Order: sequence, then C-alpha cells, then structure tokens
Amino acid sequence: MPELRLNLITREWVIIATERAKRPDEFRQRRDKKYPPEHDKNCPFCPGNEDKTPGEIMKVSSDGSWKIRVTPNKFSALNVEGERKRINEGLKHLVTGVGRHEVIIESNIHNTTIALMPAEDAADILRIYKKRFLDIYNDSRIEHVIIFKNNGEKAGTSLEHPHSQIVGAPVTPMQVRDRIDETTRYFDNTGECLMCATVKSELSEGRRIILDTKHFVTFIPYAALSPFHTWIFPKRHNASFGDISDEEIADLAYNLKTALSKIYHGLDNPDYNYVIRSESPKESGSEYFHWYLSIVPRVIQAAGFELGSGMYINTSLPEEIAEFLRKVKTDS
Amino acid sequence: MPELRLNLITREWVIIATERAKRPDEFRQRRDKKYPPEHDKNCPFCPGNEDKTPGEIMKVSSDGSWKIRVTPNKFSALNVEGERKRINEGLKHLVTGVGRHEVIIESNIHNTTIALMPAEDAADILRIYKKRFLDIYNDSRIEHVIIFKNNGEKAGTSLEHPHSQIVGAPVTPMQVRDRIDETTRYFDNTGECLMCATVKSELSEGRRIILDTKHFVTFIPYAALSPFHTWIFPKRHNASFGDISDEEIADLAYNLKTALSKIYHGLDNPDYNYVIRSESPKESGSEYFHWYLSIVPRVIQAAGFELGSGMYINTSLPEEIAEFLRKVKTDS
Repeated sequence: MPELRLNLITREWVIIATERAKRPDEFRQRRDKKYPPEHDKNCPFCPGNEDKTPGEIMKVSSDGSWKIRVTPNKFSALNVEGERKRINEGLKHLVTGVGRHEVIIESNIHNTTIALMPAEDAADILRIYKKRFLDIYNDSRIEHVIIFKNNGEKAGTSLEHPHSQIVGAPVTPMQVRDRIDETTRYFDNTGECLMCATVKSELSEGRRIILDTKHFVTFIPYAALSPFHTWIFPKRHNASFGDISDEEIADLAYNLKTALSKIYHGLDNPDYNYVIRSESPKESGSEYFHWYLSIVPRVIQAAGFELGSGMYINTSLPEEIAEFLRKVKTDS
Repeated sequence: MPELRLNLITREWVIIATERAKRPDEFRQRRDKKYPPEHDKNCPFCPGNEDKTPGEIMKVSSDGSWKIRVTPNKFSALNVEGERKRINEGLKHLVTGVGRHEVIIESNIHNTTIALMPAEDAADILRIYKKRFLDIYNDSRIEHVIIFKNNGEKAGTSLEHPHSQIVGAPVTPMQVRDRIDETTRYFDNTGECLMCATVKSELSEGRRIILDTKHFVTFIPYAALSPFHTWIFPKRHNASFGDISDEEIADLAYNLKTALSKIYHGLDNPDYNYVIRSESPKESGSEYFHWYLSIVPRVIQAAGFELGSGMYINTSLPEEIAEFLRKVKTDS
C-alpha cells in the first residue's frame, strides 16, 4: 500500500509510491556525455578568463593565484543600483527589482565538484557563503537572501565549472513566510523548535540517518519529496546561517562533502540542486526557526500533478535510500 | 529595471527579468525530433492495444469504435482498494495511499493534440473530465481531485499519445488549502471573490487578454510564473469545476483549444502542462474560491532559486507575450 507522508516544515504531503518504488541503484544515471577537461579556455569561470565576468567582489588566494572568486552574475535577475519602491495599483502589487545576484566560483579547476574536493576546500566555500550572506544583509533594501547551487542541466545550468549563486531579494518569499509560520505554530503547540525535535526523533529512530557528527546530522527526510532528497540540520538551535561558527563550518563542510560524494558515487554524478534555508541574521535569536541545508538530486521529473497540487510522488523509500547511501564509500 | 510582481492567488512573488527578457518568438522550440505517426502499434493507448491498459472505466464511441477511453493508470500512485487510515506517531503523520489515478485517452489518433482538434472534440474530453471528477468525488475516501495533463518529456511524460490524468487523493494538498485561505482573506477584506475581481480588472486593462468569450476569459497572468503561462477563468463565479454547464463546456473547449493552438503554432509545439484548480463539488457554493485552468508551457527550467525560495524568474514580459499570442493565427 502506498503511503502519504506529511512534511511538517512545508506542510505538504508526499505520496511514497511503495508499489512503484525502485531500488536505490535504479536511479543511477546513464551518462553518455564526456567528462569535462581540467581547464576549458572557453569557460568564463576558468583562470585566464577573469575579464569575462563583470568585476570581482572578493576572492580567496593561495600561492599567488585565486582559489575562489565572487563576482556579480552577468545575467543578474535584479539590479544592484536603484531604489526599492512599492507600487500598488488595484490588484497589481509591484516592487522594483533591486537586489544582489552573485556567483561564487568555487574552484580554479574546471572539472572538480564539492563531492571530489577535500572537506577543507568545501569549508573555504562555506566561509565565503557566510561572508557574502552577512554582507548582502547589510544592504537595507534586501529582505531575504538565498544561497543555492545548480549542478548540471537538469538542475538548471549549462555551465560545468563548479559554482553556486547567492540572491538578495527586496521581498521575503511567501514560501519562506509559510515555513516560519509553521515552525512558529509548532513552537506554540509544543514549546519546542520543530527542527530540534526532528533531529532528536531522527537520531532516536536512526533508519534515515546518513551521517551524525558533533554539530550536524545528515539524513533522508521522512517525507522526502523525491529520491535522494537529503537534509543537513545543525544540532545547535539557530535561525540564521549567518551565525555559524568556524568549528561548525568545518563540520558542515564534512557533512556536505560526504553527502554529495555518496550521491556522486552512488548515482554516477547526477544533476542536483542544493539550497540553504535560513532566516535573516536579525532573526538569529528566534526560538522558532532553525536553518538547514537541503539537497535535491534531479533524478525524477516533476510534472502536472506536482504543479497542480504541490504534492510530490516519490518512487523510492526514504529508509532504503538512507541504507544505500550509508554503504556508499566516499573518497575522503 | 526588473520588477517583482505579486501573484495574489498563490501569494508568491515573480521576478519579471525585464533586462534579460527575450522576445516572445525567442521561446520557439528547436525541434529535431520526428513527428509521430497517426497510429503506433507499440503504443498502449492506440486502437488494437486495448488489452495493454488495465480495464476500462468508460468510453465515448462514434461509428462503432471508441473516440475517448478512460482507464486506471497502469502505474497508479495510489491503490483503488483499501481503507483510508491515519497513523500518527510522534512527528510522523501518515495516511494510507488509497485513491484513484486514471488516464483519459483523448483520441484514437496517436499524433493529434487538443491544439489541432475541432473544438467539439475538445468539448467531448472536457465532458469526460466533468463526469470522472464528479464520480471520483463520490468516493468518500477522496478529499481532493486534480485533473492535469503532461504533454511532452519536459512536462513529465514520454507517452506521445494524447492523454490526461485525474488523481483522487485521500488528503487536501496544502497548496490547495493555501489558495483557499488566501481567497477567503481577500473576500473578508473586500467582500468580493479574488478571481471575479481579477477577471474584471484584466478585461478593463485589456493588455494581457488573449481571448474574451461569453463565459470565459483567457489571459496571461500579471505575475505569470514563466513565459507563456496562461490562465483561463470562467466569468460565472463558482468554486467547483463539477458545476460547469454544457454551454460553458463548449465555450471552455473553444478557449482551451484556441490557447493551446496559439501556443502550438507560436512556439512550434512546446511541451506543456495544464491543470484544473477546483474545489470539491461539496463547496461549489463557496463565495471565496473560483475554479480556473492554468497552462504552463515548459520553455524554461526551474532551478535552485525557485526550489529554495518559491519565487520564479520569468524572462519574458506578460504584456508582450499576450500581444504575440493575440496575433498568432489558429487553424480553427
């Protein structure tokens, strides 16, 4: 019998299609594409092509050359200049599109990826995330900052060079408001943070855990929206990623690298997105929300049902996916 | 300057990326695939292969052979047999996966599509939608019914034969609840239905209208989530699609066929989804909600930003898309 499981954070039901469920290794990608070279002279993010990106916001150097660079997104969705203005006219509500849209070039090597890097290099990237996150929130026109990664064409990018993006928007997305409302309601009901309760419950049940370290736990959500959907939750309650300590960054890097490496080796380098879901640094003391990182490999295609209902059909068993990933060896 | 526009029904912001916006005809598909034949002996939905579908729920016949067939989905996400049970255990909330998942085979011709059919044939399909919609709601285990179509691989189907699907779920999706909450709030504020107000406002402004007939209006939403996102709203206030009259069905068929035909010819047959957003027939008298049909051509790829924020980046101007579609000739 299939099961409908409720995701308590998004409030959405997921159909776990037990009878149509595939074995975890059936989601392995069949790749016929060539693997990219270490350096591509046509890649705007490769060393030597620094003039193809618009300016440089910051960089991390080592041995005289850059290792990580941050630049404005050449195809920015938002204008960095200008005033945030509201125009309300009948049913039309408009905010001028000011904001930040930056690219974090994660390495000077064209064909690497966090899955294959030493955890220390992943930590350098996360440190940059934190710096840009805090800096962008200093812009008073910005209401909400999203850090995310598109890896591969199915995940929305044709650029092979390892990179992530950060957007500072002049409004708070309603999806974010909904999660805050829901975690606040949970707190009001129970006096406890929903994510703290989830960490406790997942660790005690154990079946969906991939990795449990001093500061983080990596696991498959009970109501995973798609196969290999993975969450990394910090154990210390805090609403904002901006408050992460240096020791925690090192531990998060180890969790992220391990999760991505297991997905990389277990599924032969699938396309994926990840996103950091966080409140503003102003709210870091909030008792209700708790930041986390969510990884969504793009191994199935959402269709009209998902579009029309918001519900997802997951053709895998979260418990089997976790068992499979626990066994995949990583190269760290 | 880009604009953030608020969709009042979903409460979500859309970034209209004015400076990155493409001209409408730049979304034209470059198809190198062959067009399918009129009949495919390997297609489970083609005449002669009726034994490849599990049973037959109903059909429409003409001249002794079927024209439209409804069958259970061979790969049903839900079980038609069984009891709806709730299991609540700590943070885990589960409902047994009972429900309906049916396929509407829209024609006995393998390579046709609503865009190319006479409007009368589209009306026959819509009449079947209504019958199945009402019938499935008679199952007391069903809380919510979704009618949708996946057309093409980017829209989530590899089956070429024209078909749509109907799912009866044992829960109400939260996305549906959110829309009802929002339209109720709008009613409480203004004493008016949000969709009735939208029809009035769109007709009076006129810039985003594609087609205005006796009972329906087809238009590009002010905050369209992606290029060529199209809404068809009934003019008569009613919360449930199940209440549509026969005269309205004929008019809806004309609107749907015209919209899909303009998209087909304007973009060279892009993949698309559509979905009917409706309340249960029990709620058809509700003053708050108002059913509608939403078409989403799959001409851009949602990525980590959309996943992580719920906001969409639309690289087209809704007003330009409407102007473009008004000019596309249809073959009706």
